[in-house]
Amino acid sequence: MKFLRYGAAGTEKPGVLDKDGRIRDLSGKVPDLAGAALDPEALAKLADIDPASLPLVDGNPRLGPCVAGTGKFICIGLNYSDHAAETGATVPPEPIIFMKATSAICGPNDDVIIPRTSVKTDWEVELGVVIGKTAKYVSEDEALDYVAGYCTINDVSERAFQAEHHGQWTKGKSADTFGPTGPWLVTKDEVADPQDLSMWLKVNGETVQNGSTKTMVYGVAFLVSYLSRFMSLRPGDIISTGTPPGVGLGMKPPRFLKAGDVMELGIEGLGTQKQTCVADD
Amino acid sequence: MKFLRYGAAGTEKPGVLDKDGRIRDLSGKVPDLAGAALDPEALAKLADIDPASLPLVDGNPRLGPCVAGTGKFICIGLNYSDHAAETGATVPPEPIIFMKATSAICGPNDDVIIPRTSVKTDWEVELGVVIGKTAKYVSEDEALDYVAGYCTINDVSERAFQAEHHGQWTKGKSADTFGPTGPWLVTKDEVADPQDLSMWLKVNGETVQNGSTKTMVYGVAFLVSYLSRFMSLRPGDIISTGTPPGVGLGMKPPRFLKAGDVMELGIEGLGTQKQTCVADD
Repeated sequence: MKFLRYGAAGTEKPGVLDKDGRIRDLSGKVPDLAGAALDPEALAKLADIDPASLPLVDGNPRLGPCVAGTGKFICIGLNYSDHAAETGATVPPEPIIFMKATSAICGPNDDVIIPRTSVKTDWEVELGVVIGKTAKYVSEDEALDYVAGYCTINDVSERAFQAEHHGQWTKGKSADTFGPTGPWLVTKDEVADPQDLSMWLKVNGETVQNGSTKTMVYGVAFLVSYLSRFMSLRPGDIISTGTPPGVGLGMKPPRFLKAGDVMELGIEGLGTQKQTCVADD
Repeated sequence: MKFLRYGAAGTEKPGVLDKDGRIRDLSGKVPDLAGAALDPEALAKLADIDPASLPLVDGNPRLGPCVAGTGKFICIGLNYSDHAAETGATVPPEPIIFMKATSAICGPNDDVIIPRTSVKTDWEVELGVVIGKTAKYVSEDEALDYVAGYCTINDVSERAFQAEHHGQWTKGKSADTFGPTGPWLVTKDEVADPQDLSMWLKVNGETVQNGSTKTMVYGVAFLVSYLSRFMSLRPGDIISTGTPPGVGLGMKPPRFLKAGDVMELGIEGLGTQKQTCVADD
């Protein structure tokens, strides 16, 4: 199933796509796509409901982030070998972990606000993994049992903040709107292999990233297991698993976003996003 | 005023200390010490209530973290010149920012669980700053207007996870129970100068940290202003402002925590904590 959240920022309701791609209102069945509702068993029960029996949502509402109650927005650095190479780094022998502020999370098509002092705002299409139940010391074999599903994420990054202001990376990853998330939380049954998904990102119509989760260094199951050694993962936590080549920082010369630029991005089966960059007045 | 939260983990109620140091139940006045309740104006209204008019809480309940709804647990690295020296680092020309997982937050006297593969669990007494209302691009002069109050924090750290597993620091800062917070949220009016507070930490009765916020490199007002350039600060967010000298990593030879060890720590006017270390079975 493709779950989503729709409505004005902060007051989104849960919804689900029907077979014709229309939004059906789930708010009569579950308060939000958060906490216990994200348990894979709870999601399976929601998936048993015939969407046609749910109220049709009129019009074309704003989409919010596809999951609520996110306590941790965990990112994996340099997790595609080609991306590491383009940034001049080597593949790390263990995953690099950093956090984005949860206040950076926004809807998939919301404007991306370029911070006032930004000079190097950049894009990163990433596979997002949404945790469905608490995971602590879980093995790689059982790791996916703790996953609710997958989504598209744009890990928007300010490279000067990230690397030229004396550490750590979180500084360049956390501005408001730097985490478009969605459009959908796609349940595991619809993703045959999370390590075989094509992904792409365009800036002003030009394809700049065109990769696949096939070239991820540390895969989803390994990452969930690995992270669960260092912290407990809770329902609603998001793991953003790194980006393939093609970021602005890696271009010669480097290219960064300015107000008016439009990003479009997507991952196979997980839906697309479109953001317009705006100044922070 | 000294606000607090008491009761079993996950179901704490808000409370306040009366003039005799007894807990009074605030749950009839405010749902929790979170979100809009942390606005300095809202806290001032709560402070107008005579604690003697509130129900007395019997017995000696567990104390929870003194604030709820924390979206970001932001830490400042190497923010005391002497501590930087003891770890072999230099004072950074701008604040180092990293995140602790919010799932690490626990009550001030809860057991600290040493992770299964830990070999270098360490202590850090720190001044915690609790944000009271959303701050974005605030000046240093106005920064304290956005602060709800202060608290004691133990920024428990696993040094091998932090520094020997290929980045970033969040990896060694985020285990469950690595963030004892409280006992009290002390409002600003009771803290004449946040840059003149003595602070200490004992392990098994031996004083190992004995410092003062006087030697902080980047002070509270600067930090709130600085952070607000990179991310919006929201009510309930906590800034843990760094630790003075005396951590285990800096001892010769280094000394780390094991099951059975007891940490006691406190900051002048902000109350004390006491944690027993336990194994993660």
